[in-house]
Amino acid sequence: MSNEKKIMECVPNFSEGRDLNKIEKILENFRGKEGVKLLDYSRDEDHNRLVVTVVGEPIALKDAVLEAMGTAIEIIDMRVHKGQHPRMGATDVVPFIPIKNVTMEEAIDLAKTLAKEVSEKYNLPIYLYEKAASSPERENLAKVRKGQFEKMNEKLKEEGWKPDFGPNHVHETAGVTAIGARMPLVAFNVNLDTGNLDIANNIAKNVRFIGGGLRFCKAMGVELKERGITQISMNMTDYTKTSLYRSFEMVKMEAKRYGVNVVGSEVIGLLPMEALIDTAVYYMGIENFSLNQVLENSLME
Amino acid sequence: MSNEKKIMECVPNFSEGRDLNKIEKILENFRGKEGVKLLDYSRDEDHNRLVVTVVGEPIALKDAVLEAMGTAIEIIDMRVHKGQHPRMGATDVVPFIPIKNVTMEEAIDLAKTLAKEVSEKYNLPIYLYEKAASSPERENLAKVRKGQFEKMNEKLKEEGWKPDFGPNHVHETAGVTAIGARMPLVAFNVNLDTGNLDIANNIAKNVRFIGGGLRFCKAMGVELKERGITQISMNMTDYTKTSLYRSFEMVKMEAKRYGVNVVGSEVIGLLPMEALIDTAVYYMGIENFSLNQVLENSLME
Repeated sequence: MSNEKKIMECVPNFSEGRDLNKIEKILENFRGKEGVKLLDYSRDEDHNRLVVTVVGEPIALKDAVLEAMGTAIEIIDMRVHKGQHPRMGATDVVPFIPIKNVTMEEAIDLAKTLAKEVSEKYNLPIYLYEKAASSPERENLAKVRKGQFEKMNEKLKEEGWKPDFGPNHVHETAGVTAIGARMPLVAFNVNLDTGNLDIANNIAKNVRFIGGGLRFCKAMGVELKERGITQISMNMTDYTKTSLYRSFEMVKMEAKRYGVNVVGSEVIGLLPMEALIDTAVYYMGIENFSLNQVLENSLME
Repeated sequence: MSNEKKIMECVPNFSEGRDLNKIEKILENFRGKEGVKLLDYSRDEDHNRLVVTVVGEPIALKDAVLEAMGTAIEIIDMRVHKGQHPRMGATDVVPFIPIKNVTMEEAIDLAKTLAKEVSEKYNLPIYLYEKAASSPERENLAKVRKGQFEKMNEKLKEEGWKPDFGPNHVHETAGVTAIGARMPLVAFNVNLDTGNLDIANNIAKNVRFIGGGLRFCKAMGVELKERGITQISMNMTDYTKTSLYRSFEMVKMEAKRYGVNVVGSEVIGLLPMEALIDTAVYYMGIENFSLNQVLENSLME
């Protein structure tokens, strides 16, 4: 009945999006387990990939992921895997995400513990990535996965690409897995009353980090053809430091330059309560607000 | 591990705010019980009153309240009770409040079930009040409690004040209890950059229900002497129908008439997540947002 319970999230990606029996076998590892809760999963036939969202008490969560990786090694053969999404392993990528009463350091430690255990148990090479990366070149997943399964055996033998755990060669059928830690991502889109994609793209460039904008914001312009409007599609990579309202107000501010107005927004998928409460606190200037005042916060066990 | 778990809140008020041993005996009924969680309690020596905030699965919650009422009957003697707060019983008032996956109808049913059980077990007269009231005259707690413990025996014999459950006479030591159902209250205050209390009171009158303002808003002006400002102190009696942002914007609008500005706000005590998320959704115009997108919502068990 404590409010101090630690909750970690994990979003493992598996290289199987077509065979429902195999998918069910992977998911079984997350069902009916004490301290673990399967929140969501989505499979994509074109990508031939399964994305699982699971939360839980850190150790129980890590153990369930370890077992699911064992299942993936048993049933997925990367030598015959085809799909549009880049991939290098049966379990392709495993990010841990701190949610409640846990720090990023604990997420990083959990990633390393899993990496050690899974590499020893299955002789599987592991790269640590993002916040768990052992060097800056390994932070970016796209760089880590470059070459994909087919070229990974050569890459593992390169001086700079020795794996963080496990052998210097791919697992014959299961390839290589990237395990890491990151903040929760919030997919936040802001709609504009223009159909002009160039304007949307210009605004996106000014708002996003690489264009000189907000530190934890990725952004691009997108056309919503049916509605005849455009959208700034954003990925907020750390909502605790770059708040949603700040990117919202910045899009509004930049749109002014083109005589364009913001006509709404949308949040895709899940987001932590704090991201929206922070926004309410900003707009109404609520003083000294604590998340402990949120009733549901006391109800989470 | 289901997201469908029903959560009811109850805020029973007991007529004991001084004797810590007795208070602990009452609180014990809410501790260490499956499906019941003691969120908060506050005692006041002047009021000689204990206010308990407890949540839980409806039946488990009702059973715990029933037991606490038994303890109160054992240890509180209203014939010798003195305190500044109006009161009529050892357990004075018991509101049930629907929080999650439960309706107001279920809160009303739970109030009636408790009323029946406690009246039969202890021969205690019960008035149903607020949403559970058996007639409009019994909705208002102040009217129900009028006369207090000392005059309650006469009141119970009046034609219009026959109790809803139990005998037509007071319990000798435990008096009468009011049991009811209501929405969660949100205590929301908006600060003004004027020290003029008349202005604050005028704004309060325009914003609140009885002055022709918002349906589920009670409001009054309050001086914050230390800061040299005033405040519109509001009780939002149904935030699902009268949103916080609406009362905030209405205070702003009315303040304009006096050349006064809103300089912040505060939330006192607990409030449901939805009250602030609704506010964020309004200010950023988030389309098609569902509370199911809030990660913590999936984590409540």
